[in-house]
Order: sequence, then structure tokens, then C-alpha cells
Amino acid sequence: MRVRMGDEVVEMRSVEYEDGTVKMIDQRVLPEEIRIFRADTLKKVAYAIREMVVRGAPAIGIAAAYGMAGAYERGEDLYEARDSLARTRPTAHDLFYALDRMLEAYKAGRDVVEEAIRYADEIVERCRKIGEAGEPLIEDGYRILTHCNAGALAVADWGTALAPMRMAHRNGRRIFVWVDETRPRLQGARLTAWELLQEGIDHAVIADNAAGFFMRRGEVDLVIVGADRIAANGDVANKIGTYEKAVVAHENGIPFYVAAPVSTFDLHLKSGEEIPIEERSEDEVLEVRGRRVAPLGSHARNPAFDVTPAKYITGIITEMGIIKPGEVRRVVE
Amino acid sequence: MRVRMGDEVVEMRSVEYEDGTVKMIDQRVLPEEIRIFRADTLKKVAYAIREMVVRGAPAIGIAAAYGMAGAYERGEDLYEARDSLARTRPTAHDLFYALDRMLEAYKAGRDVVEEAIRYADEIVERCRKIGEAGEPLIEDGYRILTHCNAGALAVADWGTALAPMRMAHRNGRRIFVWVDETRPRLQGARLTAWELLQEGIDHAVIADNAAGFFMRRGEVDLVIVGADRIAANGDVANKIGTYEKAVVAHENGIPFYVAAPVSTFDLHLKSGEEIPIEERSEDEVLEVRGRRVAPLGSHARNPAFDVTPAKYITGIITEMGIIKPGEVRRVVE
Repeated sequence: MRVRMGDEVVEMRSVEYEDGTVKMIDQRVLPEEIRIFRADTLKKVAYAIREMVVRGAPAIGIAAAYGMAGAYERGEDLYEARDSLARTRPTAHDLFYALDRMLEAYKAGRDVVEEAIRYADEIVERCRKIGEAGEPLIEDGYRILTHCNAGALAVADWGTALAPMRMAHRNGRRIFVWVDETRPRLQGARLTAWELLQEGIDHAVIADNAAGFFMRRGEVDLVIVGADRIAANGDVANKIGTYEKAVVAHENGIPFYVAAPVSTFDLHLKSGEEIPIEERSEDEVLEVRGRRVAPLGSHARNPAFDVTPAKYITGIITEMGIIKPGEVRRVVE
Repeated sequence: MRVRMGDEVVEMRSVEYEDGTVKMIDQRVLPEEIRIFRADTLKKVAYAIREMVVRGAPAIGIAAAYGMAGAYERGEDLYEARDSLARTRPTAHDLFYALDRMLEAYKAGRDVVEEAIRYADEIVERCRKIGEAGEPLIEDGYRILTHCNAGALAVADWGTALAPMRMAHRNGRRIFVWVDETRPRLQGARLTAWELLQEGIDHAVIADNAAGFFMRRGEVDLVIVGADRIAANGDVANKIGTYEKAVVAHENGIPFYVAAPVSTFDLHLKSGEEIPIEERSEDEVLEVRGRRVAPLGSHARNPAFDVTPAKYITGIITEMGIIKPGEVRRVVE
């Protein structure tokens, strides 16, 4: 991903590994500050995932893989390491996928550091392919809506939902992106807007409430979002609010695509009903960036994800091409 | 409306008139502080409406009527007063309705102060009747979703959408209210939650993104929202995001009601397409309560209202009873 540092444009990844340490762009303090969070213990890696220093399903998977690599280098018990990282967040499938793959490699006597680096490179390469697969959906002049951040920050590089947009922009197509601010944690306003600025892609931030307004006015040509987990029937768990956008896009005849690498597919689950949904602290809703907005005495509910039924999804953009939600089991198996 | 001041519960209105001065609960600083904004010049009344010291279509109408009363007492030109107040905000129909009614009274040689007080009393009484008309919709144990603030603050007393809930609660029914926080200005989290706390009504604030999640899980029995303007065909302009909630409620078979006094109906407009939609400053989106969240260099779009087509609306709760959107012209004429 491109990051502007003063006059320079630097190519970097949002999650990297170096000598037993997982280095992550601290997504809690963007866009005010580009700060690198260094996790040199398993506890710090778990903290980084739980507290959303690193977020986005594929990036969580990579951070977890690197966390296992660090534990391996330090000679720690990898079964325990797996369990403690698995307890950090429940919804993103990539987390469990990455942890199990590292444990399998260890059991097979392979070098877990090499395996983790290979895993990260694979995910990044898959996202580049997602970009290639999705790019033809984007015509010159298209106005594309996205929700939350399914960008390079959420993956390490390229992004999932943002990969086709990056690719189209780098290939000279004029595009415009509607960025849902994505309450409660504002990943759209803070992270997606920041990534688009770094790339030089034209965009506007909108309140989540305004997406339907622009859809109904015919000012949205296409919706692309990421995914945290995809069930065998094509139901998609993603950031809270995705379901509403999908229903309203469907009602307005706007194509609605989900972009995700196969590590996000969980064929053990028949439908989205079985996907565990994390409920986070009510303070994320009652406060905005640390400042209380609701009256003292009021409470909140804060589900972090919702499930979009397959029927609202036009297609899923994967590294193997675009598939219909109904084809998930056949294609992924 | 009930307001808790220390150990006391005080009955008051959000907009009052006294000796040429319009006194308003300053809705910009709630819930941290209960501050009274005193507008003793026309300019201050216009400022209060434009800057949302007072907000909510019926309350804007009352503030405008009182503003005309003040101008009348000071011997100012009421034609000019009407024009300057009409320029403050474009969407709420009550504003123009109230201004024209005061001007008509003046032209007929009547006392504009008395007319303004009568107007406010009528609106409050109409909202009480909206409460009576809507109360039977609310069964014991109901979980009701509302968007923005269509409460006593938005009217002076009772509220529109909140009137049936107040009435049901005071009559002993157990209810629970889902409060959409309502970005960008957070009228739900700040104002509706505050009003419900004052009344002792059980509630939870949610991110606007989460409404669909709870609808799909079967945890919403009823939706009631307010309105800023209703066209002759039953299309409703209301706070941005209302359209999305209506579509998702419809998709989930949840009754969706709009509550409004007849001052909100604009029979000159054939459909919602003709309702002017205010677009406010992008800073309301780029910042949250004065703190920048989006990166410098990013821009935003900020439509303050959207239009919900009549087909998504189960009924409109008015002071004359509940009407179908298709009956608007017949009933209101």
C-alpha cells in the first residue's frame, strides 16, 4: 500500500514480521498519526487483535500467524499460543484459519516463521488477484459505495473491497468512492478515507444514514464491501450496517458485491445463522472517540457485525474469480 | 415534558415566549447541560433555527411563530421578519406554515402574540392527541425503534413519535425503545435518550448501522418516526436515515409509522420528489462534536433529510387519528 510520508510515497504493509516481533500500523490512532505498534510477546499480539490495533479479517489472520511465528521462535507452547489468540475475537474466520494452519505446520515439523511469511504473502497475492477479478466490474466514471474498511489496512496490502478500486484507479479509470463513516468505530471515515487519500482516489465521507439517500438518487453505481466470515450458503458476516446497505441496494437495483479471499469462507457453517456475532463494549456507542455523547444513565447495545443473507448479494469477488453466493460450496471445495 | 433538575421533576416546554423573548432549551449542549437560549431579536431567532439551538419541525414552527410575535411587539416589519425567518432552513414545512399563519393574522388585524401562543398551544394539544391516537399500536412488552428526536424537544411538549410511547408508559405499559444515535448530529443519542431518561422509559442507544440487525433478529416490534414534511401522496421527508430504516422494516414485515401534526403536511407538493432537501456543512460529518475524525484532505456530503416513499409507510399518526399514506389529501383537506 502507498503511504504518504511528507513528500515521499512509501510502499509498505500494514502488518509485518521482524525478528520475532509483529509490527502493525496502529489503526486506533489513524488518521491523526502513523504509529507502529510492536508486539514482541504473545500477550501483546492478543492485545493488538482484541483492542483493534489491527483489524480486518485477513489482517487479523496475518497478525495471528505472525504471533504464532514469534511464539515458535521464542520456544513457547504453540497449542497454548493458539488457544490464547483464538480467544481474542470471535467473528473473523481468518483468525482461526491462520492459527490452525500454523499449528498444522508445526505438527508436521515445518518452520512456523517461514509458514507465517508464506501465509501473509499468499493473502496479499490473493488480494491482488481479487483486484484483478473485480476490476472489470468498475466502468469509467463509476461511483462506488463501500462500508467500513476493507482496504490494505484490513489485509496487509491491496485490500479486499478496495483492491478492485485501487486497480481500476492505477489503470487510469476515473472513479469516485462513497465512504460510509461506519459507526461506532468510524473505520470508514478514519481508515478508508485515509487509504483513498494516500492513493489519490476521489471520495466523499457520508454518515451511514446517507447511503440510502444517494442510492435512491441514482448516484451509486456499485457497492463493494469486505467480509469477516462467509457461510457455505453464501451468507456473509461483515461490519454492522452491511445488511442494511445490501437490502437498500437490492431495493434500488444496485449491484452489491462482497470481496474476500477463500480464508474467509467457513464451509463448516451451513448458513449465516451459525456465525457467532461479537458484541463489543457499549462505550463504543455511548462515546465518540473517548467523548461521551449519550446522557449518563443511558445504556447501549453494540453488535460489531451483522449477517447479510445470500439473496441480497450479486456476487463474491475472490482470488479465483467472481462467484455467485449459491456456488460457494462447489467452488471453494 | 418532564425534566429532572436534581431531585425535582419539573414540567416545562422546550420553546416558550415571555415579553418579546423566545426562550428555548439549547439543544446543542444537551445532554451535558440544560441551558436556556434567549432570543430577544429576530436575528437571534433566525440564528437559533439555523444553528439548531431549536430543531424538530413542530418546534421550529413554534419558535418562528414566537419570533414573529416578538417582531410584532417591537413594531418591526412583519413581511421582512417572515422573509428572514423563512431563509433559515428549507425542509421543515411547519416553519412556512407558522410564518404564513402569523402574517395572515397580522394582515387581518389580529394580535400576533396571542396568535403565536394559540399556535403553540394547538401544536402541543395536537401532539397529545397524536399520543392518544398512536398509543393503541403499542402492546405491553413492545420494543419500538425510533430515529432522530421526534420528542418533546422537537415540538415543545409530548413530541410526535414519542407521544404514543410517553402515553403508553404513563398508562403503565412496559415498553423498551431502540434509539438510533442518528449521525451526524446524534439527536438520538443526545436528545431522545435524554428525554426517555427523564420519563423513566427503558431504552438502549444503538449505532444507526445496528437497526437492521435487531429488526432481522425479531427484536423490533414497531417503528415510529417523526416527519419534517409530508407530500400529498404520503411521501415523507424526515431525518437522513429514515428511508433506510423504512426499507429494512418493510423487508422484515415490521410496521413502520410516521407521527406528525397536520402542520407538517404540504398538499402543494404532489410527491416527495418535490421536497427541498437541505445539505448542511460537511464538517458535521468530518468532525464529531467538534473533533475531527476524517483525515485532513477528505471531504464529505451531508444531506440532512431523505424522502421515504409512501409504499414503505404503514400509517401516519395524526391528531385526527391514524391515516393511510394514500389518504393524505382526502383526510387533510
